Amino acid sequence: MKELLFDQFQQIINNSNEEDLVVLSKWMNGFEKKQSGEISTYINAGLHLEKTLTDDFCKVSIPVTPFIHNNFRTPHGGIIALLLDTAMGVLASHTLPENKAVVTTNLSINYLATVTERHLHAQASISHKGRQTIVTTGNVKDDGGKLVAIATGSFFVIQRSR
Amino acid sequence: MKELLFDQFQQIINNSNEEDLVVLSKWMNGFEKKQSGEISTYINAGLHLEKTLTDDFCKVSIPVTPFIHNNFRTPHGGIIALLLDTAMGVLASHTLPENKAVVTTNLSINYLATVTERHLHAQASISHKGRQTIVTTGNVKDDGGKLVAIATGSFFVIQRSR
Amino acid sequence: MKELLFDQFQQIINNSNEEDLVVLSKWMNGFEKKQSGEISTYINAGLHLEKTLTDDFCKVSIPVTPFIHNNFRTPHGGIIALLLDTAMGVLASHTLPENKAVVTTNLSINYLATVTERHLHAQASISHKGRQTIVTTGNVKDDGGKLVAIATGSFFVIQRSR
Amino acid sequence: MKELLFDQFQQIINNSNEEDLVVLSKWMNGFEKKQSGEISTYINAGLHLEKTLTDDFCKVSIPVTPFIHNNFRTPHGGIIALLLDTAMGVLASHTLPENKAVVTTNLSINYLATVTERHLHAQASISHKGRQTIVTTGNVKDDGGKLVAIATGSFFVIQRSR
Repeated sequence: MKELLFDQFQQIINNSNEEDLVVLSKWMNGFEKKQSGEISTYINAGLHLEKTLTDDFCKVSIPVTPFIHNNFRTPHGGIIALLLDTAMGVLASHTLPENKAVVTTNLSINYLATVTERHLHAQASISHKGRQTIVTTGNVKDDGGKLVAIATGSFFVIQRSR
Repeated sequence: MKELLFDQFQQIINNSNEEDLVVLSKWMNGFEKKQSGEISTYINAGLHLEKTLTDDFCKVSIPVTPFIHNNFRTPHGGIIALLLDTAMGVLASHTLPENKAVVTTNLSINYLATVTERHLHAQASISHKGRQTIVTTGNVKDDGGKLVAIATGSFFVIQRSR
Repeated sequence: MKELLFDQFQQIINNSNEEDLVVLSKWMNGFEKKQSGEISTYINAGLHLEKTLTDDFCKVSIPVTPFIHNNFRTPHGGIIALLLDTAMGVLASHTLPENKAVVTTNLSINYLATVTERHLHAQASISHKGRQTIVTTGNVKDDGGKLVAIATGSFFVIQRSR
Repeated sequence: MKELLFDQFQQIINNSNEEDLVVLSKWMNGFEKKQSGEISTYINAGLHLEKTLTDDFCKVSIPVTPFIHNNFRTPHGGIIALLLDTAMGVLASHTLPENKAVVTTNLSINYLATVTERHLHAQASISHKGRQTIVTTGNVKDDGGKLVAIATGSFFVIQRSR
């Protein structure tokens, strides 16, 4: 199988334009972070997602690259949703003991402005922590601090399976 | 640069476990679809996203692979959001003349059930078409027809830049 | 006290214009329904709210009167929200055994069109019934069937206190 | 007609229990505020709604009375929605020149806690002001400062008809 993947990669490289090469390079750099254990999921590795987590605050950032572009060559609204879901979910989960986790029940996003800068930064904070539900708010800003989106996320507390 | 990418790829292959190889293979298959023009964006190519569009209906499907898994090894809520945003946005845009397009203003998603099947299918329909705003609803089902998420999407009509 | 209320009412009547008298008359008709037990809450009585409930469907209607007008002399968006919350909540509650009830956790409403007819009709249906959460959708139409608003409502199941 | 209303009121008074009398008294006090022009709509008068408005802040308060109770004898979620819609809409409208106004396009509310105090206070602030859309956030607290609900409201800018 490895041989075939190798041939396929060679072909892809040969057919690549400038932008393709940038995306491939970035993607492989991310993939290595998954392999080294630096990032725990393929999708977050693909997005070069970086987290900062304190007790009452979570920030998640990604670079804006062609990989996340929609047809208008701006970041896909779904990727902004992923960023917000991650920031809010990580924070909600962090408020719980080790044997518990959260699943998203509701995610509501208002998109406010187009992204023109090179990174997206999502921030989350807790609005309400109940026994079984946690409600958070979040926002996405670009490098210049422009507000790109605001969001509310509701999470349900579950037992973490072992 | 191509030489370096090649070396990097070789290293990645050498460090790959079974799952890594599956993700790499799938990802390259998708990348080829971007290169051939079959899929227009890198992210949709990476997700192997397939669209069916009629005048009042849009369906968008992706396979469930480790690439879109969160830490629980189920599809990331953000990817489900991306799927819904795509289905609803494509349909909203399709109701407009060629010189117009839409941007998402609000996306609200209720997550209802865990995904256990091998594909996700998002469907959208139009609730309201105004001159400047379009409101749509959507849902995501798995192969067995189980309802995984429901959503509402609001879109603003803009001039398509040329 | 009754004497004072009586005097106050006389004064109000004396100061009333045509519209005031209509609102007063309507309001007293509603109040009588509360007193007779036909409607269980003051606010629903004030709105002349009527329910139709089957096992998988709930419809709630109110007349459009000056009592619910905002400054534009159209029904207040908050009253449309109340109507939707009622239709979805009554239906959600109806799916449960007698010793359980629901509280609203999330209500999301898209307002689509201005009301020009004489009644508002909210309808609800169940999207998902879990052990602890119920998700419903709803819409509001006017007499002519024009879609005025669509909504999603999430409810949490609680023990009914006795 | 006034004679008939008078008779009807006498009957209602005669059939009233303690709580009925409180609701009637409160309601008439509110109605007088509508007649004097102190409050501009019947519904706001019925709710004894009070506004404080500055350039970047709007606060709207109502007393918790049996008039707004649901069947659990707590404030109806729809009334909390009305309060939030009012606070956010008034503030959005206040950012505009005299010849413009707003209509609500989306209202999304998360209910966080039960109300146990005697007043509800809604506050709003602006998240984004575009040429045609305004996005606001809001919250409702009780007298003790407990967070009862959070909300997001989207508004569309229209020409005020004259």
